[in-house]
Amino acid sequence: MNASLSDITKQIFPVNELLIKKAFERINNLTKPMGSLGRLEEVAAKLYAIFGGNMPEAFRKVVCVFAADHGVTEEGVSAYPKDVTHQMVYNFLSGKAAINVFANTTNTTVYVVDVGVDYQFEGGKNLLIKKIRRGSSNFVKTTAMSIEEAEKSILAGFDVASDVISKGYNLLAPGDMGIGNTTVSSAVLKAVTGYDTNQLVGYGTGVDEQTVKLKIKTVDKAITLHQPKKDDAVDILHKVGGFEIGAICGFVLGSAFYKRPVVIDGFISAAGFILAMLLNKNVIDYAIFSHCSMERGHKLFFEFIKSKPLFDLNLRLGEGTGSVLSFPIIEASLKMFNDMATFEEAKVSEKLS
Amino acid sequence: MNASLSDITKQIFPVNELLIKKAFERINNLTKPMGSLGRLEEVAAKLYAIFGGNMPEAFRKVVCVFAADHGVTEEGVSAYPKDVTHQMVYNFLSGKAAINVFANTTNTTVYVVDVGVDYQFEGGKNLLIKKIRRGSSNFVKTTAMSIEEAEKSILAGFDVASDVISKGYNLLAPGDMGIGNTTVSSAVLKAVTGYDTNQLVGYGTGVDEQTVKLKIKTVDKAITLHQPKKDDAVDILHKVGGFEIGAICGFVLGSAFYKRPVVIDGFISAAGFILAMLLNKNVIDYAIFSHCSMERGHKLFFEFIKSKPLFDLNLRLGEGTGSVLSFPIIEASLKMFNDMATFEEAKVSEKLS
Repeated sequence: MNASLSDITKQIFPVNELLIKKAFERINNLTKPMGSLGRLEEVAAKLYAIFGGNMPEAFRKVVCVFAADHGVTEEGVSAYPKDVTHQMVYNFLSGKAAINVFANTTNTTVYVVDVGVDYQFEGGKNLLIKKIRRGSSNFVKTTAMSIEEAEKSILAGFDVASDVISKGYNLLAPGDMGIGNTTVSSAVLKAVTGYDTNQLVGYGTGVDEQTVKLKIKTVDKAITLHQPKKDDAVDILHKVGGFEIGAICGFVLGSAFYKRPVVIDGFISAAGFILAMLLNKNVIDYAIFSHCSMERGHKLFFEFIKSKPLFDLNLRLGEGTGSVLSFPIIEASLKMFNDMATFEEAKVSEKLS
Repeated sequence: MNASLSDITKQIFPVNELLIKKAFERINNLTKPMGSLGRLEEVAAKLYAIFGGNMPEAFRKVVCVFAADHGVTEEGVSAYPKDVTHQMVYNFLSGKAAINVFANTTNTTVYVVDVGVDYQFEGGKNLLIKKIRRGSSNFVKTTAMSIEEAEKSILAGFDVASDVISKGYNLLAPGDMGIGNTTVSSAVLKAVTGYDTNQLVGYGTGVDEQTVKLKIKTVDKAITLHQPKKDDAVDILHKVGGFEIGAICGFVLGSAFYKRPVVIDGFISAAGFILAMLLNKNVIDYAIFSHCSMERGHKLFFEFIKSKPLFDLNLRLGEGTGSVLSFPIIEASLKMFNDMATFEEAKVSEKLS
């Protein structure tokens, strides 16, 4: 499809709220006290509305890990050398990283998408090359990317969502890999929310106190230099973004465009998600938030969007790991809806009135 | 095995703490920032110690749902008629209850164990009959059961754990079914902790405010009448317990005795667990707490035993559902430990010093 970003965002609609009510008519008749499956009931009703009242029998699950490098790593904001981005891509391709292991236990397909790694890959099974450029520019010196590159990164993510949906996947999650990307995500969230930078910047892969201070300074410097417009996703990406964050934004748009549930992982995915919300707030109807990460700004993200994640396991890895860990819970919600007996079917007495 | 309860409790030992350290030596070398998989790292180290430094390749998972009736339902403490206990047993056997559905999605075997339902079952696949009696007595009038019955219920649960472990299951969870059993569990937790009854009694299957007040009164009346000894599990069971709670206690003892991880579900399983802790505190080394339920006393249980559950999904169903929902996370912890590459193996650069 050769649609522009504005063509796409015009075609993202809210779910039908009556279907949420209709879902609860069934859920409330299943053999369990009303409301006793808590968050799973919410998830099931949301899925029912997303799928337009036609629940799938099962999920085909996929995680797409978007990888890119970041010019801002020059400033010394990460605990790991930049080379780790491409080394980890190889680790994903060899099937031995955390995301692969969790994907194996949950029968999930992993694609790795190079949207801007500073390395020339030979290609490989499940590696998609959608490279915008070999890493963004250092945003304390210049804009992270051009406006055209920002749009291109969003469309790259959108295309990946289109592709996997056309292959039959119906439970999607974006993931991320990019040394330096907690700093970039903090800058994006700062631009959108205006919250205190001290609260939006965290320990990332495990930096020391001094480096946290440097990260805070770096974010503030970039925001002061570029003055990104708080409601303009493309402007924010262009000035202080990253290629994988743009792609995650586009992947979320694609999921909502095609009406498929998209599961959001940690802090980096939150940054991509919030940009998608600026482009069309209806994307939230298609999103399930898997977890709250240890990265402290993630809590503020949930405050800002007024949503709650499914769990908090003190994760701070990214890659989409939190989302894939939540897949079995989402799957259990689906199966609860599809497979549980009603009181009538099971001949179980109902509540005393 | 024809061992007495005191023979059994003498043979439950703590895990080897050095093995937890040894596990972290491996975990800290896996290709992820140190500590970035949070609670999963804790779980993996705990599993390694439980299995004595010899991690299984995979889990064979089982949930054993212990069902019993409670004389105290005469007092009007539940929102459902007592018949629902046996009706739900049939629902479990037909494979259409929540626990079955979640077990199917996680490849878990379900056994239902009648330890005291007021109904004569014909028997059926995966139904084990270990009936102590057709329901406990109303503990506001007399003791819930005799001392011999209390011990028998514990040994019944122990035997079920022995049986499933001998069949090769190596990840175990007890579950519960019994109309009235939140009142009974509140009484058990009151006896052990001495906490404020108002805080230990909750809405159960969804009773109204008036019935909550009646539940509080009922628990206080029973405690005043019987004065159970706070550190004597058998005395507490005898006076204010229930047959499925005794069996869960014994199932926990069995898991620890044979050194297998046992996953603890909601409020009823908590009551069984806390009795097992009175018999031998080392059982906690073998326990993984799946979730914090909506039943308000459950939070106090975690305070009392100084532990934290994996998640909080606003569940209040029982049956073992929370535990089975947590199995994929525990499995992911195992696979993380077994299958992830180390930095060296993957040729990924380590943290800058």
